[in-house]
Amino acid sequence: MTKAQRLKGELIKTVPVPLGDRSYNIHIGDGLLNDLGVLIAPVLRRPNVVIVTDENVAKIHLQAVRTSLLDAGITVSSVVLPAGEATKSYDRFTDLTNQLLALGTERKDTLIALGGGVIGDITGFAAAVLRRGMDFIQVPTSLLAQVDSSVGGKTGINTPHGKNLLGAFHQPRMVVIDLAVLDTLPARELQAGYAEIVKYGLIDDPDFFSWLEENGARIRTGDRTAQAYAVAKSCEAKARIVAEDEFEAGKRALLNLGHTFGHALEAECAYDGTLLHGEGVAIGMAMALDLSVRMGIANPEDLVRYRAHLQSVNMMASAAQVGKALDAGQLLGHMAQDKKVDAGEIVFILGPIGGAATHKGIDLDLVKAVLQDSIDG
Amino acid sequence: MTKAQRLKGELIKTVPVPLGDRSYNIHIGDGLLNDLGVLIAPVLRRPNVVIVTDENVAKIHLQAVRTSLLDAGITVSSVVLPAGEATKSYDRFTDLTNQLLALGTERKDTLIALGGGVIGDITGFAAAVLRRGMDFIQVPTSLLAQVDSSVGGKTGINTPHGKNLLGAFHQPRMVVIDLAVLDTLPARELQAGYAEIVKYGLIDDPDFFSWLEENGARIRTGDRTAQAYAVAKSCEAKARIVAEDEFEAGKRALLNLGHTFGHALEAECAYDGTLLHGEGVAIGMAMALDLSVRMGIANPEDLVRYRAHLQSVNMMASAAQVGKALDAGQLLGHMAQDKKVDAGEIVFILGPIGGAATHKGIDLDLVKAVLQDSIDG
Repeated sequence: MTKAQRLKGELIKTVPVPLGDRSYNIHIGDGLLNDLGVLIAPVLRRPNVVIVTDENVAKIHLQAVRTSLLDAGITVSSVVLPAGEATKSYDRFTDLTNQLLALGTERKDTLIALGGGVIGDITGFAAAVLRRGMDFIQVPTSLLAQVDSSVGGKTGINTPHGKNLLGAFHQPRMVVIDLAVLDTLPARELQAGYAEIVKYGLIDDPDFFSWLEENGARIRTGDRTAQAYAVAKSCEAKARIVAEDEFEAGKRALLNLGHTFGHALEAECAYDGTLLHGEGVAIGMAMALDLSVRMGIANPEDLVRYRAHLQSVNMMASAAQVGKALDAGQLLGHMAQDKKVDAGEIVFILGPIGGAATHKGIDLDLVKAVLQDSIDG
Repeated sequence: MTKAQRLKGELIKTVPVPLGDRSYNIHIGDGLLNDLGVLIAPVLRRPNVVIVTDENVAKIHLQAVRTSLLDAGITVSSVVLPAGEATKSYDRFTDLTNQLLALGTERKDTLIALGGGVIGDITGFAAAVLRRGMDFIQVPTSLLAQVDSSVGGKTGINTPHGKNLLGAFHQPRMVVIDLAVLDTLPARELQAGYAEIVKYGLIDDPDFFSWLEENGARIRTGDRTAQAYAVAKSCEAKARIVAEDEFEAGKRALLNLGHTFGHALEAECAYDGTLLHGEGVAIGMAMALDLSVRMGIANPEDLVRYRAHLQSVNMMASAAQVGKALDAGQLLGHMAQDKKVDAGEIVFILGPIGGAATHKGIDLDLVKAVLQDSIDG
């Protein structure tokens, strides 16, 4: 399709995130990258933006986005970072902020995070701290970022001690989700992002989990109607939880279902691409369900059902499938360094499908057994 | 004085900073370091703190502070950084956050910034972003930090592009000001901090400026009554302005009187100690008054009076006194990179003594002439 043939996109749904003077909209549609300038112009403090993106996304989408912004009378610069989790480091963050300052970026300018979760997190954190805070807009190009990381204002970078240990709560001014970009994703990445969609079913929406059992596979095969439904449903769930508990004093912790386990798996894989974040979360949620079953707060059939669903969409359900030698003790060590540790106790999100809740004071021998069984397959 | 002989200090005044759910108190007194544990215990989310301080301050005050905290049943660790503005760098910040993580610091722990402006700024920024935000308490040990930087929640570090270009608004949970520590300061540092006291007179309190003309010298010579009056007056002025405009959308900018000029002088001295921050501000305020006179918005006698006051307390009033070759064009270049630049225009705080206001669109040739005359002495 040449540029001349390209049509303006279709706006399918707008999901509001009600957070007082930090409220914003999530626009979900088909082909919206071409409408980005028109969509964001009303929320810019001045018509000057810097796009932050990665090398992979830049090749596919940067030109279209630039054109859309320029057509709307917006001045545009861009910074292109290497792709991958390693970009969420101190050094890259330093480089990014220095590049933004070298471009003469001012307080009233707006950063556009055009990319997946890594780009959204590092760009949002740069916006949070550059000149003590400037605006940014999320334009998520991975499924994972569209249904999870672009909404809710969590930003940050990784440290040698663990993921996202440096960051800020800094809400975007808008989120623009173009489902058309999903067609450009590698199959594995699309699949990994799907884990965060399943998460919303597991937390508190058993009907949505049932819908996914019926329709989940259609999301991977490019069915726009199924994608729009699942992405909107996920964004609504996230917006609702974030609006209730913006700074994670309570309910928001449920969004970490599977993440304490998952982060430990990622840490052991040293963020080298062996395991994608969503893959870690999918396995982590299986571990959380397994632990719930052993504690008697979930039925064994919930675990069977969840594992069967992962299998039906070709996703890994155990640490044995990661393809890397793992040690239960080391995984547990990583979990003890999690952000969610409270007074030395690891916080777990546990429960049956659709009934997740926060738990502390868990028997760590039980946790280790869950880890070992997942490693053994 | 041995520990056994040491008396509990005297609480002279408590200044509230009313900021809704971010409200806190500034406790001003004589000997309060010995009461720190008792003072802060009620605001700790759990009784576990990490003191961040510098080598100089640690030698003099760390033991007393540790003892006071331990006596109050608080668990204490500490991180000691090198002294000086160079500590407010990316690299030191990375080291600090890694050390805090290595200590196992959790979200509900509290950091104690025990030191001058540098320690307060870098510790506050670490608290703002570590695990996406934890509590901190300011225990300022320089006059400058006591009357200015410890109050109001501005935190940050420097970048190669300028001072404080990375940071966050993050309010402390409490500020504890012990005037007794002023007796341990080098005379030059005490003098430099005095500039920020004079600033409050220049901004909107001509009576306070008159009081300083009468009594300013007593602050430097250790008169506790004069110190208490001036520090409380300064903290009240700062608290009032911050409460009106926490995030610097308007009035708070007045606190930058002299700072755009001053930061440029500091940048040219490469933060190497040739020029202390307060010294830069004192000269910068002279430049701002000079510019105001040239623009016809201040009387020439205000400039004469201000310069005479600086002279009476042995402070530098012009760039010629810095003892370093300076170039007006380069200083102007630094000013154009200031955080306060808005749509390419430098924002100046100008006006007569006690009548400062924000100004934009200033003739840069006039600014350059002011810089040149100050360089020429």
